[in-house]
Amino acid sequence: MPTIGIADTTFARYNMGAAAIDELKNSISAKIIRVTVPGIKDLPVAAKKLLEEQHCDIVIALGMPGRQPQDKICAHEASQGIILAQLMTNKHIIEVFVHEDEGKDDKELAFLMEQRSREHAQNVVKMLTNPEKMIKEAGTGQREGFKDAKPLS
Amino acid sequence: MPTIGIADTTFARYNMGAAAIDELKNSISAKIIRVTVPGIKDLPVAAKKLLEEQHCDIVIALGMPGRQPQDKICAHEASQGIILAQLMTNKHIIEVFVHEDEGKDDKELAFLMEQRSREHAQNVVKMLTNPEKMIKEAGTGQREGFKDAKPLS
Amino acid sequence: MPTIGIADTTFARYNMGAAAIDELKNSISAKIIRVTVPGIKDLPVAAKKLLEEQHCDIVIALGMPGRQPQDKICAHEASQGIILAQLMTNKHIIEVFVHEDEGKDDKELAFLMEQRSREHAQNVVKMLTNPEKMIKEAGTGQREGFKDAKPLS
Amino acid sequence: MPTIGIADTTFARYNMGAAAIDELKNSISAKIIRVTVPGIKDLPVAAKKLLEEQHCDIVIALGMPGRQPQDKICAHEASQGIILAQLMTNKHIIEVFVHEDEGKDDKELAFLMEQRSREHAQNVVKMLTNPEKMIKEAGTGQREGFKDAKPLS
Amino acid sequence: MPTIGIADTTFARYNMGAAAIDELKNSISAKIIRVTVPGIKDLPVAAKKLLEEQHCDIVIALGMPGRQPQDKICAHEASQGIILAQLMTNKHIIEVFVHEDEGKDDKELAFLMEQRSREHAQNVVKMLTNPEKMIKEAGTGQREGFKDAKPLS
Repeated sequence: MPTIGIADTTFARYNMGAAAIDELKNSISAKIIRVTVPGIKDLPVAAKKLLEEQHCDIVIALGMPGRQPQDKICAHEASQGIILAQLMTNKHIIEVFVHEDEGKDDKELAFLMEQRSREHAQNVVKMLTNPEKMIKEAGTGQREGFKDAKPLS
Repeated sequence: MPTIGIADTTFARYNMGAAAIDELKNSISAKIIRVTVPGIKDLPVAAKKLLEEQHCDIVIALGMPGRQPQDKICAHEASQGIILAQLMTNKHIIEVFVHEDEGKDDKELAFLMEQRSREHAQNVVKMLTNPEKMIKEAGTGQREGFKDAKPLS
Repeated sequence: MPTIGIADTTFARYNMGAAAIDELKNSISAKIIRVTVPGIKDLPVAAKKLLEEQHCDIVIALGMPGRQPQDKICAHEASQGIILAQLMTNKHIIEVFVHEDEGKDDKELAFLMEQRSREHAQNVVKMLTNPEKMIKEAGTGQREGFKDAKPLS
Repeated sequence: MPTIGIADTTFARYNMGAAAIDELKNSISAKIIRVTVPGIKDLPVAAKKLLEEQHCDIVIALGMPGRQPQDKICAHEASQGIILAQLMTNKHIIEVFVHEDEGKDDKELAFLMEQRSREHAQNVVKMLTNPEKMIKEAGTGQREGFKDAKPLS
Repeated sequence: MPTIGIADTTFARYNMGAAAIDELKNSISAKIIRVTVPGIKDLPVAAKKLLEEQHCDIVIALGMPGRQPQDKICAHEASQGIILAQLMTNKHIIEVFVHEDEGKDDKELAFLMEQRSREHAQNVVKMLTNPEKMIKEAGTGQREGFKDAKPLS
């Protein structure tokens, strides 16, 4: 049984961690360990600690970068840290970021945060249990949260 | 009893380290070790030395990036370094940056620097003593210094 | 016989991995191992795992950054991670990125994704079997996918 | 007796290393080791070699980024490298950069390069011999080269 | 006798590696090892392999970033990787980049690529054989390829 880590933030305006956990519980038999940190820049080390100290096989790191230019820079820093944490551990951390300005209003934003969290939880399930299925979807324009893109062929 | 490191700068125009220490002293029984460096780009290694050489369990790194474009770049470099220092130590460094242009005047800026330092000190207390409380606040739009954001649900 | 890793994404709108593999099969006797991940930011660790856990001699990492500004930032983060993964392993990862806005329409974009994947597969073949040929082409304005540039002398 | 490293460049238009060394010699009894490299992007490894191979306790890295946009990017890369070198060694490298466009004319630029080098040399002296003095100056708006900023309280 | 590595690219429109090697051969008795890779983002690991696997004492990494915005980002990524490779090896990698838009026409561009390659080869010779000479040139406004800048004093 795999161990899946969930790291999310108190800054986000929607409980993304709960959405991801609910989706995982409906789809896979796994041990789930959750940690919540203040903001997205705290996610890289939180995820690495889940991988190394809590022996997670994979982590989902969820956050909502704000709408200000400075928030975009924070998101960039967090993403770089999440990539580095993966390279230091040889394990995947699936980043689920929904930028606050991706939704046209609060309702769409909430929908997107729920939906993207769930669809990336499904990616994690596939990566853990059926990597061949990922190969079959290579180049098919998959999107998480919004409608998939049109494949070119 | 945990050991908490405080790293701040002589560049900042407000004694953020003192605010954080005062808040900690009112909230938790901990050993506190403080170091002050010239600017925010000196914070990453200062924080890492507190974690590794002074055996701190967590560090609060406080700084005030200036209002010039070059200052924004320095803040970005410092933030990346702070994230990297965490990944190298598997410990949290809570970054408390108040940009000089976040306040509409000196009075608001001082208020913000005091308040954000204190609220992040409270985050550190929660992370050390009650991580379950952090999970309960996941996705609730917490902000440090200014008013919290409205949760989407 | 060398082992060549292929890492691509479900986000891309064209099966770049298949194009690279087809080209390799026509050109070199090698063991090929493929993995598909959700997006380009998942490529660095996927490539590093191919190098370290699957003992690949070299990896081709293929992806299609989208046309939005945020997608450009993701591509930058992925590229930095791919460079870092190489430095941590002392092995080459040949990055094959085609930005969604590089083609003037879907047809040209598909052509470019196919062609660049194949030409970089040829680079990998040369690097593995005939590095002297690479030196002979030094400074000759080679381009992958589009027409080569004019050498200056 | 501490060992202090000085790394500067042939690209700079003013002998910053000499200014720092003169200031140090007037203020502290220390062994000083100097190295000069072509440009600021050569400073990170030069500083790290001073720390690790020449056993310096601290290094001052001095440079003058040019006035072109590309020069600003080089400065950013050098700064990131200097932060990383510190994290890899757990020692401070005090970066003294004067951007060529910080002075309104050559005379002011020369003054600034001399003055900032000297004031950061004084920071190094304080960090080595009297870290308590740094804490006393926390949040007081210290600036190196130009006039100090006004503290907010 | 030192070993000097040369890493250049097939993307560049001028044989920079040949220019650097010719200059070195006229100036120093050294073993020279050359490798050519597709583009500048392949240079960091190529240089690191020359240092670690081919036991080079120093490496010259030569490339020509293109004139498009995306090319500038690639150059930034390559430069960061080159700095990191140096920090991981404690050896210098002298980066010789000529941006395609630095020359006002093809003729000036070719001149610049030849000249900068040769002048940086001379820097390498000085660093290997006469580091004292570098210190004497500190702060003198040296430029590689174009005319030197005017020292401020």
